[in-house]
Amino acid sequence: MADVTSVTMDKIVSLAKRRGFVFQSSEIYGGQGGAWDYGPLGVELKNNIKRAWWRTNVLERADMVGLDAAILMHPRAWEASGHVGHFTDPMVDCRECKRRYRTDDPSLDGKLEVCPDCGARGSFTEPRQFNLMFKTFVGPVEEDAAQVYLRPETAQGIFVNFSNVVTAMRRKLPFGIAQVGKAFRNEITPGNFTFRSREFEQMEIEFFVKPGTDEEWHRRWIEDRLRWYADLGMDPARLKLRPHDQDELSHYSKGTTDVEYLFPMGWSELEGVANRTDFDLKQHSEFSGGKLTYFDEESGEHIVPYVIEPSAGADRATLAFLIDSYQEEEVPAGADKRELRTVLKLHPELAPVKAAVLPLSRNEKLLPTGQEVYTLLRAGLRDCLVQYDDAQSIGRRYRRQDEIGTPYCVTVDFETLEDRAVTVRDRDSMTQERVPIAELTAALREKLGR
Amino acid sequence: MADVTSVTMDKIVSLAKRRGFVFQSSEIYGGQGGAWDYGPLGVELKNNIKRAWWRTNVLERADMVGLDAAILMHPRAWEASGHVGHFTDPMVDCRECKRRYRTDDPSLDGKLEVCPDCGARGSFTEPRQFNLMFKTFVGPVEEDAAQVYLRPETAQGIFVNFSNVVTAMRRKLPFGIAQVGKAFRNEITPGNFTFRSREFEQMEIEFFVKPGTDEEWHRRWIEDRLRWYADLGMDPARLKLRPHDQDELSHYSKGTTDVEYLFPMGWSELEGVANRTDFDLKQHSEFSGGKLTYFDEESGEHIVPYVIEPSAGADRATLAFLIDSYQEEEVPAGADKRELRTVLKLHPELAPVKAAVLPLSRNEKLLPTGQEVYTLLRAGLRDCLVQYDDAQSIGRRYRRQDEIGTPYCVTVDFETLEDRAVTVRDRDSMTQERVPIAELTAALREKLGR
Repeated sequence: MADVTSVTMDKIVSLAKRRGFVFQSSEIYGGQGGAWDYGPLGVELKNNIKRAWWRTNVLERADMVGLDAAILMHPRAWEASGHVGHFTDPMVDCRECKRRYRTDDPSLDGKLEVCPDCGARGSFTEPRQFNLMFKTFVGPVEEDAAQVYLRPETAQGIFVNFSNVVTAMRRKLPFGIAQVGKAFRNEITPGNFTFRSREFEQMEIEFFVKPGTDEEWHRRWIEDRLRWYADLGMDPARLKLRPHDQDELSHYSKGTTDVEYLFPMGWSELEGVANRTDFDLKQHSEFSGGKLTYFDEESGEHIVPYVIEPSAGADRATLAFLIDSYQEEEVPAGADKRELRTVLKLHPELAPVKAAVLPLSRNEKLLPTGQEVYTLLRAGLRDCLVQYDDAQSIGRRYRRQDEIGTPYCVTVDFETLEDRAVTVRDRDSMTQERVPIAELTAALREKLGR
Repeated sequence: MADVTSVTMDKIVSLAKRRGFVFQSSEIYGGQGGAWDYGPLGVELKNNIKRAWWRTNVLERADMVGLDAAILMHPRAWEASGHVGHFTDPMVDCRECKRRYRTDDPSLDGKLEVCPDCGARGSFTEPRQFNLMFKTFVGPVEEDAAQVYLRPETAQGIFVNFSNVVTAMRRKLPFGIAQVGKAFRNEITPGNFTFRSREFEQMEIEFFVKPGTDEEWHRRWIEDRLRWYADLGMDPARLKLRPHDQDELSHYSKGTTDVEYLFPMGWSELEGVANRTDFDLKQHSEFSGGKLTYFDEESGEHIVPYVIEPSAGADRATLAFLIDSYQEEEVPAGADKRELRTVLKLHPELAPVKAAVLPLSRNEKLLPTGQEVYTLLRAGLRDCLVQYDDAQSIGRRYRRQDEIGTPYCVTVDFETLEDRAVTVRDRDSMTQERVPIAELTAALREKLGR
């Protein structure tokens, strides 16, 4: 079984739409640029990824708690964070046709001379900074005082709650706060499918440590986060760490290392792990007039903790897991024949459908037992999506389940009516195993690690 | 054990902040009106509610699939849905002080005469319609063509994907699409804690049926949704159904029944179950020029399905479960004494912390076993938050766990060191039971229904 082709983004986009993973947002209206809708299988895959992240980083750790802060924050928070001042792209306007370009727009070819749209020469304004935050107005009057932003990152919702969490949860350093939620950036050039979009979901951790221990914790988090992707089945050869050069560091960062994945368009960021120092807590203290310090019992001093931030994209992770699990294989198809199958070799934890129940045919003797097994598994496999499919040949149905990454297919055949057992087919090895219906739920739980 | 006081919103707000359920958004900046942050326990409670909803409505049903559409949709979708035209509140401006009021603002006392802010008489403009959708601009230029809305309901993301879902998932009527996600409404008077906010989370189902079967399905969904709250422990005496009068029906609805809960401020809507007819699919067909029909194999005709919409608020459900589970009880406290305890009698499925490990004291002989049991449960109780607490007296720690609704406290005492067994205390009955550590995970799984 060889991998006969390599995956392209086109193949992923096509499969994603055809099988209900990702649709273009508002497609019937021509689409809303930079926004995507997760279909019935996509929402399960993405939820499984978010839940796996929460399990590893909140539930299984003694030194973490969760949070879910609002998207609409007080606008002063974004002055404090530096986003009002710094979260910008340099843009130029064409004075002739009024179109606006990022100065690093590839169509400008690095030179700000000829407008690619109207062809005017020397018509560009001087570059100006364009802020990437979406703005809106709260309350009935559209005035400056009512202007707020859609958060461009979830992180600040954590920082402003630092004291609330320490007090309510009686936390001691080191400890972290984890959050999953939407963020918005008015990207001028969204692209590469769901990789860069205007609306996206982050999985962020702010891990608070004593100053002086920050570099050690930074190293540990980089390792932990890299391992998380590999533990969920991502090919280690397509994962790497890339420390930022000094001149590309964000204004708040003392050091950042990206976890990169080899996407079809090249190595790109899955997650950034930054040492944000005490920048954010100090800024919010200054701008709010409140005290965001921590009383260190050991030294008897009030200190401002340092912060390590592993910041991952849920959409990027979803895209990377789709790409990484995608394989086209030649497999045996009856006597001497071989056929091509597309299979998503997703980790069982991530697979949107955990098991599919397939009666061998639509013979009316088989269907009631098919339904019985389907009902049994739906009730017995907690928090697992189980499908039932009796349309078309069993071979085609196996292929359909392979293509969406279902780890186990359960076939009800005529023998089942005699021996009350079913065939369980393994997605990757394609081996089949006979299991009594009475033991099926327990057997699948075991296989699925639940 | 009698319920000695009745719950007030003040008590809930206070407990929510003190114990890390809900914080005011951007509190250190004076707060962002109409937005709330869920703290470490609140995010677990709310996630448990959302997951229970998904389990009942997607995973356990053969006739439902999920979806996760973007918040930013094409603006034409909101013209089609009627929100651009109809989603408004009538407002008046004071010509003197420029303040704006809803005409039904209680401070106006029903009369549009004296401005409550500046005291001017007869200064009000004629009432005008104010749209409740938040607006923003996509792309670099703030022009009308780039204006989009933050979705005021998740429903429309489902309707515009109707054909995508039918095709990708090979669905036949009747079937439903379920979605959990944020929505935004620029409410002029948010209030009653998290009950009415500007940013909130919906749990919506659009259930597509053949015309003619809609009334029967409407009845079934009303019953199903009412039962869901009761099955998760909500007091049936504080739940009721309220059919809308003909004159309060939304423009799209043929009939709506609310599931109401007796909040401290009175009976209020938890969820609306509406018969939206074929209004939305027809509107989107007309506005997009696309065909949103379904081919009915039986009749050989293309039909526009009717839609039953159970639309619940995740924040309202969270608030209602908090209120409903809140009790103050007099309980025995040693010889002849009684004390007051506050307890959240949350369904184990919803409780943010499923078990707490409490060494009897900080005696150094107990702590290693305490940590051992904590580690054991964290690994063994999948997707459950487990806490460890060794600060202060055991009585105070029981009270702390009662107050956050932890169903089981596991106490490690000096006998444990001899017999390798621990005491499991039941939150509601306060009875204690000795369980060997070797059987503890299985015993708690059984009790928790996992």
